[in-house]
Amino acid sequence: MPHTSLPQEPRPELDERSLQDLVQNNQLHAALEWLESNPPHVVADELARTDAVTASMAFRLLDKDRALTVFEELEPVDQQQILQGLRDQSFLELVEAMDPDDRARMLREAPAKVAKRVLAGLSSHQRRMTAALLGYPEGSVGRYMTPEVVALGQDLTVGQALGVVLAEGNEAETVYTLPVVDHTRRLTGIVELRELVLNPPDTLVSALVVTEPAYAYAADSAEQAARLMRETNDLNLPVVDSEQRLVGLLTIDDALEVIEAADTEDVARQAGAAPWAGHYMAASVWQLARYRALWLSLLLVAATLTVSVTQAFEGTLEQVAQLAVFIPMLIGAGGNAGAQAATACVRALAVGEVRGSDLLKVIWRECRVGLVLGGLLAALGMVVGTLFVGADVAVVVGITLVLICGWAATIGGMMPLLAKRLKIDPAVVSAPMVTTLVDATGLIIYFLTAKAVLGV
Amino acid sequence: MPHTSLPQEPRPELDERSLQDLVQNNQLHAALEWLESNPPHVVADELARTDAVTASMAFRLLDKDRALTVFEELEPVDQQQILQGLRDQSFLELVEAMDPDDRARMLREAPAKVAKRVLAGLSSHQRRMTAALLGYPEGSVGRYMTPEVVALGQDLTVGQALGVVLAEGNEAETVYTLPVVDHTRRLTGIVELRELVLNPPDTLVSALVVTEPAYAYAADSAEQAARLMRETNDLNLPVVDSEQRLVGLLTIDDALEVIEAADTEDVARQAGAAPWAGHYMAASVWQLARYRALWLSLLLVAATLTVSVTQAFEGTLEQVAQLAVFIPMLIGAGGNAGAQAATACVRALAVGEVRGSDLLKVIWRECRVGLVLGGLLAALGMVVGTLFVGADVAVVVGITLVLICGWAATIGGMMPLLAKRLKIDPAVVSAPMVTTLVDATGLIIYFLTAKAVLGV
Repeated sequence: MPHTSLPQEPRPELDERSLQDLVQNNQLHAALEWLESNPPHVVADELARTDAVTASMAFRLLDKDRALTVFEELEPVDQQQILQGLRDQSFLELVEAMDPDDRARMLREAPAKVAKRVLAGLSSHQRRMTAALLGYPEGSVGRYMTPEVVALGQDLTVGQALGVVLAEGNEAETVYTLPVVDHTRRLTGIVELRELVLNPPDTLVSALVVTEPAYAYAADSAEQAARLMRETNDLNLPVVDSEQRLVGLLTIDDALEVIEAADTEDVARQAGAAPWAGHYMAASVWQLARYRALWLSLLLVAATLTVSVTQAFEGTLEQVAQLAVFIPMLIGAGGNAGAQAATACVRALAVGEVRGSDLLKVIWRECRVGLVLGGLLAALGMVVGTLFVGADVAVVVGITLVLICGWAATIGGMMPLLAKRLKIDPAVVSAPMVTTLVDATGLIIYFLTAKAVLGV
Repeated sequence: MPHTSLPQEPRPELDERSLQDLVQNNQLHAALEWLESNPPHVVADELARTDAVTASMAFRLLDKDRALTVFEELEPVDQQQILQGLRDQSFLELVEAMDPDDRARMLREAPAKVAKRVLAGLSSHQRRMTAALLGYPEGSVGRYMTPEVVALGQDLTVGQALGVVLAEGNEAETVYTLPVVDHTRRLTGIVELRELVLNPPDTLVSALVVTEPAYAYAADSAEQAARLMRETNDLNLPVVDSEQRLVGLLTIDDALEVIEAADTEDVARQAGAAPWAGHYMAASVWQLARYRALWLSLLLVAATLTVSVTQAFEGTLEQVAQLAVFIPMLIGAGGNAGAQAATACVRALAVGEVRGSDLLKVIWRECRVGLVLGGLLAALGMVVGTLFVGADVAVVVGITLVLICGWAATIGGMMPLLAKRLKIDPAVVSAPMVTTLVDATGLIIYFLTAKAVLGV
């Protein structure tokens, strides 16, 4: 039985010969064998790594059912590449078979030409579904929810409810969470399919209903809704409009995608790079460079502040040339302390441990944490300083480390919360941004301390 | 109908008066009202933020059913705090009602005293379940799976299968994915409850079975298994022992916890801080400092390399004092370029877009990306240099920026993949580590370029 196991080691089939090699060398029989012997998510992975032409050639080798499964596991950008290589008939079949929420997600990122071709080919029912999802703002729950839901009336028995599931369930993406609605389609509760299956047919559904379920509005942020699901451990979250009427369900696999995408975005932002949706190996050098260029340039311009600070103290530097020797170490330490604080606070905000209103508390904690760490580093730094230069400069280095770390941690902790209060994404307060800010102010602290201690 | 909505704004009830204030001022009636009017995950959130004594007082105000729900939504560390404040009877009831995988997870992090008290109080069946989970290595699928599974034999009809679910389903954490096993309990496929409900009772289960399901070994890494589930969109992943015998299921809500924890850990590591499981607001200043101290000290010691490099070129610095002015900007730019590359590669490895075997390809891409970005920064840097000092030093700054960025991106891209090959967690290759390394080598590049161009 050829099971799909976890990749323990680099998969041997891939290392022998990659799909890309096989297709490019026209070994289509071997490629076909490879495509059939690997599970859909591995095929999808491999397609995402190859260039557009190879990917659509390989995709056309898949049989119809498998093609849909593989297609649904691709990211939207990769789906578009595949679609562009298909003739009309296969194109339409594939798009019509997608779930409406996946289709809406793909369309959102598609160039106008692809979007038009997709919408034109849909049945009117499918087009309505997709258009409805596209009406919600970007990043909202509405864009990710599935609108095809089996909802139950209020006064059913378990037997009747199972009948409703049987009649309508084939259309729906999930039947495991069944929202209960009143006659105006307002959400009044949810019942799990599990409860229906495990109870006798004449039980009243009302006895099994959870009457205060967590839910989200279609216009809410999808990330917040997904993190709410992580907290409540629900498999599906009912989605309502502003009048509490049921409009869909957010399924947990979509919530997982949303969380992963948000985390990837936060990570990119934290390193001072624009977030993007593509596959690392499929991106060109120019694309990668473009995504990093803006921040890198802004940070360089911001760093000219350090140039003018150092120039302002050139007199001090000329009198005690040894001071220059410790500049990289000191601003490095400040940057690291600030980055640690910023990262901890951005993450705590993202997972909901800290709120915007905690600003003063966070500043007070981070300031103390920074001073404690600064004290530790000062002890180390004074040893280094004494070894390399002498006791007097070493004292300057020690005092500077305490002050810089306290200051850097305070700034690092404060900025994400300030951003949150100003309704800016806290993840934009990247570690490099804090570091660059702390670099210039840290130099001022250093030179002023030197002047005070050494009297130059 | 008091629905549980998403927190759109800081929740008004909390801002008026926090649970902590109410309990500490002995306004127990108001606290009780607060506890009853807020959904379980909000209560859990609030308990996690307060100190241990307040949390266990507040917890005891909850009615029994609600108490269990709230308890299950707490993190293991917070659960232990609550448990320590309970008398034996409530303690036992709570622990016995937990799912075996959640209980095992809590025990794993509990001090020996709590662990003993928990195990002693369990029924022998529950103790066996928990002990089995604890036998698997830390971070393995076995620790997170639920061992209570409804498995089906191979030759059942849908009606018979639903009978099995009815008979055994009450014990199981989920009945939505039903593994199919042969007479030696080897996994041969899975069938979704959905299929059973939507098909006539006399259909053969074998017609509905997915015969090549994704699965994981109990000893596999839980993070890899969870990311596999994200790719396959399965609600539950069957878990087998080394002989392919079914031992449990990994449910998607546990997979989501695993992924969130792994992402939090990666984020902490990337900022050069030890990962930890606690709640940011509940940690003391000393705890926060301890988690950051080791890395910060190591980085400071590593940074002494920059001290000796600068000292080695002190002659050059004394001849052209203006060179010192650009040190912070240049090593800042190198650090940022290196951090961007490292972060992109760590994330691409984590989500599976890049494999260890891609090492050479990644080095080649990152080197080119770095040179492109370096060219861009050089143009900016030469403008800054000319404005602040003069054309000759500006040329040195420009050339240095190209070389430093190319070098930094190469190192940043290479190190995570090298770590992966050496079986070290790539996330340990943090941005600060790359930055510190690049600082010292960047200085060498700078001074050598200055010597070559200026002839000093």
